[in-house]
Amino acid sequence: MNKLNTTLLIFLFLVSLPFYSQTDEEILKEIYKQSLTNGKSYDWLNYLSNQIGSRLSGSLGAEKAVAWGKEELEKLGLDKVWLQPVMVPKWVRGAKEYAFIESEPGKTTTVNICALGGSVATPALGIKANIIEVHNFEELEALGKEQIEGKIVFYNRPMQADLIETFQAYGGCVNQRYLGAVEASKYGAVAVIVRSMNLRLDDLPHTGSMTYDNIPAEKRIPSAAISTNDAELLSTMLNLDKQVKFYFKQNCKQLNDVQSYNVIGEITGNEFPNEYMVVGGHLDSWDLGDGSHDDGAGIVQSMEVLRLFKQLGIKPKRSIRVVLFMNEENGLRGGNKYAEDAKLKGENHVFALESDSGGFTPRGFSFNCSDANFNQVLMWQSLFKPYLIHYFEKGGSGADVGPLKKDTNVLAGLRPDSQRYFDYHHASNDTFDAINKRELELGAATMASLMYLFDKYGVK
Amino acid sequence: MNKLNTTLLIFLFLVSLPFYSQTDEEILKEIYKQSLTNGKSYDWLNYLSNQIGSRLSGSLGAEKAVAWGKEELEKLGLDKVWLQPVMVPKWVRGAKEYAFIESEPGKTTTVNICALGGSVATPALGIKANIIEVHNFEELEALGKEQIEGKIVFYNRPMQADLIETFQAYGGCVNQRYLGAVEASKYGAVAVIVRSMNLRLDDLPHTGSMTYDNIPAEKRIPSAAISTNDAELLSTMLNLDKQVKFYFKQNCKQLNDVQSYNVIGEITGNEFPNEYMVVGGHLDSWDLGDGSHDDGAGIVQSMEVLRLFKQLGIKPKRSIRVVLFMNEENGLRGGNKYAEDAKLKGENHVFALESDSGGFTPRGFSFNCSDANFNQVLMWQSLFKPYLIHYFEKGGSGADVGPLKKDTNVLAGLRPDSQRYFDYHHASNDTFDAINKRELELGAATMASLMYLFDKYGVK
Repeated sequence: MNKLNTTLLIFLFLVSLPFYSQTDEEILKEIYKQSLTNGKSYDWLNYLSNQIGSRLSGSLGAEKAVAWGKEELEKLGLDKVWLQPVMVPKWVRGAKEYAFIESEPGKTTTVNICALGGSVATPALGIKANIIEVHNFEELEALGKEQIEGKIVFYNRPMQADLIETFQAYGGCVNQRYLGAVEASKYGAVAVIVRSMNLRLDDLPHTGSMTYDNIPAEKRIPSAAISTNDAELLSTMLNLDKQVKFYFKQNCKQLNDVQSYNVIGEITGNEFPNEYMVVGGHLDSWDLGDGSHDDGAGIVQSMEVLRLFKQLGIKPKRSIRVVLFMNEENGLRGGNKYAEDAKLKGENHVFALESDSGGFTPRGFSFNCSDANFNQVLMWQSLFKPYLIHYFEKGGSGADVGPLKKDTNVLAGLRPDSQRYFDYHHASNDTFDAINKRELELGAATMASLMYLFDKYGVK
Repeated sequence: MNKLNTTLLIFLFLVSLPFYSQTDEEILKEIYKQSLTNGKSYDWLNYLSNQIGSRLSGSLGAEKAVAWGKEELEKLGLDKVWLQPVMVPKWVRGAKEYAFIESEPGKTTTVNICALGGSVATPALGIKANIIEVHNFEELEALGKEQIEGKIVFYNRPMQADLIETFQAYGGCVNQRYLGAVEASKYGAVAVIVRSMNLRLDDLPHTGSMTYDNIPAEKRIPSAAISTNDAELLSTMLNLDKQVKFYFKQNCKQLNDVQSYNVIGEITGNEFPNEYMVVGGHLDSWDLGDGSHDDGAGIVQSMEVLRLFKQLGIKPKRSIRVVLFMNEENGLRGGNKYAEDAKLKGENHVFALESDSGGFTPRGFSFNCSDANFNQVLMWQSLFKPYLIHYFEKGGSGADVGPLKKDTNVLAGLRPDSQRYFDYHHASNDTFDAINKRELELGAATMASLMYLFDKYGVK
């Protein structure tokens, strides 16, 4: 080797030094430090929550959020930023719902309800009928048409408080909300009232999606959620007198599909540009709060991952994309669209990470992947220990990235502390003040760290 | 063995079955289930916080809290409940503090301050003086008497945001608050203003203890905390103009010591009654909020440990005491008194556990103990995994149980998630609404589980 070549090599070594000479421990330390001392996630979320607000698919808020997401990603100096068109359903709540329990004619108690997403309205004057409490579909079947017909069905199975992971408790209850109308319709029910998916006793109704399956339009029955406090009250009153009636009025409507977009930004890989790694959350939210935890947090954390890479000069080998998915809440059109397009273009998605469990202190990840890939993850555990990240388990990832699954890739979901999540989920108190800056930033850093490791070491 | 004896043995086996046949896994499951579905901790804290409120040593609130603690423990059917007398300091805040920055005569900006616990008052008309910003005692020393004399010293070193454990960040700053007046006095300062120990930027001043060491009464200078937002403002204004003045007035006073009490309840051990295991927190709080996190949470969690033992029929081998310590915040008289009395009586305290880090999701414990005992703890880790309890490290325990330390025993401290703790610590927003029921209950169950294991397997 001549002297010039040696000098050149030393030079090349030195210019690459700022990043490549650092150990994984040092890179993770830098990532956490940047996120906690100089992060953008909290400011972004402040804007998204307080200046744009709720952003249900097809709403003006969603449209504004798309424009904002694109503009902010463009400021980051990524290699590409674009919008991916997708048609989304548009459901509108209309005027605020109204409901009361009538213990005898003229003697009423107002209760807090909200229409479930996708529900039809009541007749213009509302519905008043006897109401019957059940806890599951078996009870419903046992009561049968004879007892159900002409009545409102009240699903009142609470979330199970002794399950440590609250998402498990949610999973054990949510069929009441999603399928409650379909099942009750079979027996001639005129409407459905569902206990809110909330572990706490409070006055806030929690919305969420429901389906009518193939029930023809004229046979669809209106469905609403009732606050946990009012569910307890209603149950008590029914225990005292089976003849109490329930009245409610809601004004919601399903309109035609409208044009919307996934927002996508990319840092193109410098070694394997055709291997794609996705990080994302969903840009749409329900309409009651401002969607700070669900899923504003996941959006700004995902954006922060790419910002941290740029800021720290981490040049990924693989192409890293942030995807702000549209319409997770009531259709998953964005997630499906992204995966379809990726398939059409033959894009090889080797890894995808979603944050859609709130902006709380991160505890770890769950992984949908092969044993070989999971074993690699387990070898990284010690790197995360200084950040109190301890949860590495096989399991689900996220709804939006789910359609990208194939045998050879890795899907992952951030797992924050879940204790408070259902206090806010789909309710009017899911607002920016329920976010702790450090918890949000720790989540972003944890995601960026995993992304860095998967980029560096690849997928098995 | 004759038939009667065999029958007797079978009988004895059967009566002991409900508890002793259960595995550790089953017992822990019962403990968590009881705490989460049928716990008392949240209701207790609601009463303590909302009906009694703040309870600074020597205050009426503290007196009420002692009576309440004794009464509630008496309801649990423990073997003994008693009050342990202890004299405590009594410091009173007086009328609310008032402060402003004066950029030029007549042009003032009001800022949020509160007297530090133990501080003297300002003169009746307040103090107005030039103010000089420092970040540590080295800067103070470098400035010296020439630059400091006659001025107010403004300590403005923020908590370090990139430390993952916020108590470490607190430890790196709190000498400004505790020793700030002593150090500034050496150079002729007339008063001290300290940036609140808070990682967040907000408008709330955070109090906390300070000392004058041996400074004679007439030379003691008043000391106050300023909110983080106002610390930033003051710093900016000083950068623009070193001549800005600071005015404040506070009315606090140190009175004579008064009689108070530790509240103690005991389940006497049925095998080793002379081996004592303590669980506790501190019953006193600062006066600005209602002390829900500091340390109402620790109080009700400790009470819940004994309630869970009674409720589940766990009959401990060793004597288990709950101690509601008085005066942790500004004197530690209760903790010292308990340890002194234990020593006088020759009581062998083999284990003590404190909860004094807030009522947030528990992550684990830190242990002050021998390697042999710590290794035993590590063997229990898998029992805690279903509850996402993962943090088992050597370290400090708690201020109140600290005086019980000897070579042969184990002291431990509950370690909840610490990210939000300093948002509330010693400030007016440390109130019941900042408590999540499940997080509180998980902490109590985690403490009860460790207590159960140490009782069953003993200390090495």
